[in-house]
Amino acid sequence: MKKILLVGSGNVATHLAKNIDNKNYCINQVFSRSKENAKKLIEFLGCNWTNNPKKILKSDITIISVNDDSIKNVIKFLPNIPTVHTSGCTGIDILKKFNDYGVLYPLQTFKKNVDMNIKEVPFLIETNSKKFESDLFQLASNLSKIVRVTDSKTRKKIHLAAVFACNFTNHMLVLAKKICDESNNDFSLLLPLIKKTFNQINENPIKLQTGPAFREDLGVIEEHLKIIEDKNLKKIYNFLSQNIIQTKNENI
Amino acid sequence: MKKILLVGSGNVATHLAKNIDNKNYCINQVFSRSKENAKKLIEFLGCNWTNNPKKILKSDITIISVNDDSIKNVIKFLPNIPTVHTSGCTGIDILKKFNDYGVLYPLQTFKKNVDMNIKEVPFLIETNSKKFESDLFQLASNLSKIVRVTDSKTRKKIHLAAVFACNFTNHMLVLAKKICDESNNDFSLLLPLIKKTFNQINENPIKLQTGPAFREDLGVIEEHLKIIEDKNLKKIYNFLSQNIIQTKNENI
Repeated sequence: MKKILLVGSGNVATHLAKNIDNKNYCINQVFSRSKENAKKLIEFLGCNWTNNPKKILKSDITIISVNDDSIKNVIKFLPNIPTVHTSGCTGIDILKKFNDYGVLYPLQTFKKNVDMNIKEVPFLIETNSKKFESDLFQLASNLSKIVRVTDSKTRKKIHLAAVFACNFTNHMLVLAKKICDESNNDFSLLLPLIKKTFNQINENPIKLQTGPAFREDLGVIEEHLKIIEDKNLKKIYNFLSQNIIQTKNENI
Repeated sequence: MKKILLVGSGNVATHLAKNIDNKNYCINQVFSRSKENAKKLIEFLGCNWTNNPKKILKSDITIISVNDDSIKNVIKFLPNIPTVHTSGCTGIDILKKFNDYGVLYPLQTFKKNVDMNIKEVPFLIETNSKKFESDLFQLASNLSKIVRVTDSKTRKKIHLAAVFACNFTNHMLVLAKKICDESNNDFSLLLPLIKKTFNQINENPIKLQTGPAFREDLGVIEEHLKIIEDKNLKKIYNFLSQNIIQTKNENI
């Protein structure tokens, strides 16, 4: 059984740890800033915790799962064992001080308290050597059915696409709810529409586009702009509508 | 059985007609510009078609289901029978030349060839009189389980929210696919992420927001902006990220 040093105790770290602590791998220790944040996770795992670099236990692999900005800061404290980070956007080279290093990126959005079937989450991996690739592939396959080897450039593009497909779509729903709330309308009226929109995701989304901008129904667009009071919301509405029209015309 | 004159043969007209032609109502005639566009629909319904105002048959109700911009143009040809339009964004008053008039707005996105369970689609209705409200409520209830009476101002706000919740979310998926395509990545890798995002829609979307902007991870945002080549895509990325940060700070 391989022992893992887990760095971080946030959303991604928590989901990885809960799913990888099994007969092949065990989380040996969690290294994170505050015990308070890590509390639930270390209770669940029944493992050691430290924020003191001198008290890091001997392990076989380190998984760094902290904000991109913090990776640089933590690596100076870490022992020279095979080490991976879980970021979609940070290159592999940030870890080059280690002999064996790589990336284990789960292409999914995680919230600590929301359950998740990690077997269905695609993992994109990258390593500095073929030898370590095989080890990391094994570790990733222990977590998920879908493992792909991709370089840093490719992973960054997929991560960017994921921001559009997940964070920005969700933000559109946030704005839709805001519009409903501000006009005392029930957001749940929109649920059948939202369900319909996303039940069709196996299709090419450009084929499913509808709405005033796609129809170039300028009267409706003007009417909408009139009733939007918030300056930034108006700017988003206007800019996205223009972009929908432009994208449509590129695809004709 | 009440006879309906249907004006238009587009996406909404087609779905309404196919679902309302039953023992209580029948589509008596389709009035639309081109027979070619209406062909499949009139074959399905087995009903009369015309584009000649002089050949309009006597009916009990007119349903106008054309682009918002075209409503004004068609009403001058129509007989003075109870008349409704199906627009989310056009006010009721556009129909005031009729004695009885109203709005029958299905809050859903329609494509002609994509099947749809119309029973689950919320219909927002509005009329110029209580008497006609009862008739229109009956007609709408014949189509759907969810019928609400709302005024024009409210309907416009819900329609605006629907554009964000459906058209703009779908456009985000279009852009995500574009990023994948341009970097030779498989869009289907993102499907588990998209499914997860939209399986949670019964929750308040603000509670589900994740991503670099929500974490205010400025390093990742900067990295993404570096790899986006398209000027407009860069503008959308930047503006939406700023708006996510701002919305988060308003909600704290």
